[in-house]
Amino acid sequence: MNNETPAPVTVLGLGLMGTALARAFLKAGHPTTVWNRTATKAGPLVAEGARLAPTLGDALEAGGVTIVCLTDYPAVRELLGDAGLEGTTLVNLTSGDSAQARETAVWAEKRGARYLDGAIMAIPSSIGTDEAAILLSGPRPDFDLGALGAVSHLGEDPGLASLYDVAGLAMMWSILNAWLQGTAMLKTAGVDAATYAVFARQIAVGVAGWLPGYAEQVDRGSFPAEVSALETDARAMAHLVEESEALGVDAGLPKLIKAMADRAIAAGHGGEQYPVLIREFERAGE
Amino acid sequence: MNNETPAPVTVLGLGLMGTALARAFLKAGHPTTVWNRTATKAGPLVAEGARLAPTLGDALEAGGVTIVCLTDYPAVRELLGDAGLEGTTLVNLTSGDSAQARETAVWAEKRGARYLDGAIMAIPSSIGTDEAAILLSGPRPDFDLGALGAVSHLGEDPGLASLYDVAGLAMMWSILNAWLQGTAMLKTAGVDAATYAVFARQIAVGVAGWLPGYAEQVDRGSFPAEVSALETDARAMAHLVEESEALGVDAGLPKLIKAMADRAIAAGHGGEQYPVLIREFERAGE
Ligand SMILES: NC(=O)c1ccc[n+]([C@@H]2O[C@H](COP(=O)([O-])OP(=O)(O)OC[C@H]3O[C@@H](n4cnc5c(N)ncnc54)[C@H](OP(=O)(O)O)[C@@H]3O)[C@@H](O)[C@H]2O)c1
Ligand SMILES: NC(=O)c1ccc[n+]([C@@H]2O[C@H](COP(=O)([O-])OP(=O)(O)OC[C@H]3O[C@@H](n4cnc5c(N)ncnc54)[C@H](OP(=O)(O)O)[C@@H]3O)[C@@H](O)[C@H]2O)c1
Repeated sequence: MNNETPAPVTVLGLGLMGTALARAFLKAGHPTTVWNRTATKAGPLVAEGARLAPTLGDALEAGGVTIVCLTDYPAVRELLGDAGLEGTTLVNLTSGDSAQARETAVWAEKRGARYLDGAIMAIPSSIGTDEAAILLSGPRPDFDLGALGAVSHLGEDPGLASLYDVAGLAMMWSILNAWLQGTAMLKTAGVDAATYAVFARQIAVGVAGWLPGYAEQVDRGSFPAEVSALETDARAMAHLVEESEALGVDAGLPKLIKAMADRAIAAGHGGEQYPVLIREFERAGE
Repeated sequence: MNNETPAPVTVLGLGLMGTALARAFLKAGHPTTVWNRTATKAGPLVAEGARLAPTLGDALEAGGVTIVCLTDYPAVRELLGDAGLEGTTLVNLTSGDSAQARETAVWAEKRGARYLDGAIMAIPSSIGTDEAAILLSGPRPDFDLGALGAVSHLGEDPGLASLYDVAGLAMMWSILNAWLQGTAMLKTAGVDAATYAVFARQIAVGVAGWLPGYAEQVDRGSFPAEVSALETDARAMAHLVEESEALGVDAGLPKLIKAMADRAIAAGHGGEQYPVLIREFERAGE
């Protein structure tokens, strides 16, 4: 944020998330217009200083950026289907997939709007803090959404925000699952979750630090076994599977890990390093 | 390490790892005795100041701590089967599972040895640096292996070192796989691995920071949906599966993530928070 007076914004959709977005704009001093299909939901925001637009058309004419945050993309298309979008700047923070984002961008641009697609990696209560990641994609923004959280513009392709979003979620659930796997294993030896979590966090932070270096191998398409060869990893993966089974802990995650590596080894990559697995991830279910 | 003269140590097994261990001891000034089945492998270490024990019995009588690092546990039992272990302190850094560690502890203690089981989370070239995690379990050590890396004593149960080791590896591979999943998805939109890695690292470090808090829910056995309910997560998981399939990226990891959550929801936990999944990890393949 800078020292100028915050620009006017409009928020369409006052569900849990839309309300949190409008509230964060108000707190940061943005003149904020709101609209919701069920108008009564605007009550608390109006009490906090928002202007309730009497009609959707009025809301879209309020000027500045228009944030849309509804249940899903069909709801967005239904709502804006007959509306005049000429000259508006739409930022669609509704969750959806990259194809929906790209189609909606084409659709909105045909109708004269400037369209950005976004994704919110946060819960409503963290909106307005640095913990809320707001991902944007589409034309480079000339407006400031810093009131909402940590904003990143990922590129011109409007599909990028939702792709980064689901990829980030895959990382999140994978870490949580690996942690639960370890927690379940250590619990069999009487170690409590809090004790193991300290170790799990250390490992996770350490491995996260390797990603940029490993990414260079992927971008070069060359995977020399500088640290260790996939074949060596696969032997330790077999131990992980056996140990899980011996302890009576679910072995689904260990088996998936091993299956991915086995596929790469079968494809002749056993002497290369872990990131060579990118080929298996790119090759769907062959 | 402290200011006293480093204590004498003995290293049995001079493969890739045993050689790195002996070398790190020598560098740190420990009087170091070495022994290997194939004695010629000791040559370089002797040139660096190690003493080559002429027999296994001589090596075991050299005093101080005896480190064992062979291919596997059967090799350890074969090697030490007829040896006099009375009064020795054995630290077995050979990789194995927790059952092998516990059995070998009982076996060695019956024969008069003090036995610690360990695991090495490092490659030979990082031994002697802080990046090498050396995990120990068994009686609390009264000797200093700080020359080898970052040493932790995890508890009295000799099975702990190998359990932490495989649990940590599960975390490592899970992060790498989630990163590869995201990398493959983003590559379809022309984003290079290096660009995505920066984002993936941020997410991983952020999520790692939640683990201690989530661990409290596991230890309490109570999982209120303070952040979000599993049912809400499951909808986003369905998007991840669909997006992967639509992009032609392997959906094995997304499907496993969703399957674990679906099991917990089917068991009536949809309104609770993610760590309630611990029950599914603890319940093997029901
Ligand atoms: N809540 C979170 O933790 C969270 C986190 C990240 C992302 N998101 C995403 O943010 C978006 C909104 O979520 P939410 O939690 O705010 O959902 P919500 O509380 O269920 O609110 C849904 C909103 O969409 C409106 N809506 C639905 N269908 C409509 C239609 N056909 N025409 C006009 N308005 C319509 C609703 O209007 P009425 O009030 O009239 O029903 C309401 O304002 C979703 O895409 C969600 O995935 C949410
Ligand atoms: N290398 C790594 O990156 C790494 C990382 C973490 C943990 N580890 C673990 O460290 C241990 C050793 O690995 P390494 O890489 O050093 O393996 P390695 O290079 O293959 O060396 C194996 C060692 O075991 C000895 N040995 C095997 N069977 C024996 C027997 N029956 N009697 C006596 N000695 C026997 C070998 O003696 P000879 O020389 O006479 O054959 C050699 O000294 C393994 O458990 C491994 O999983 C290794």
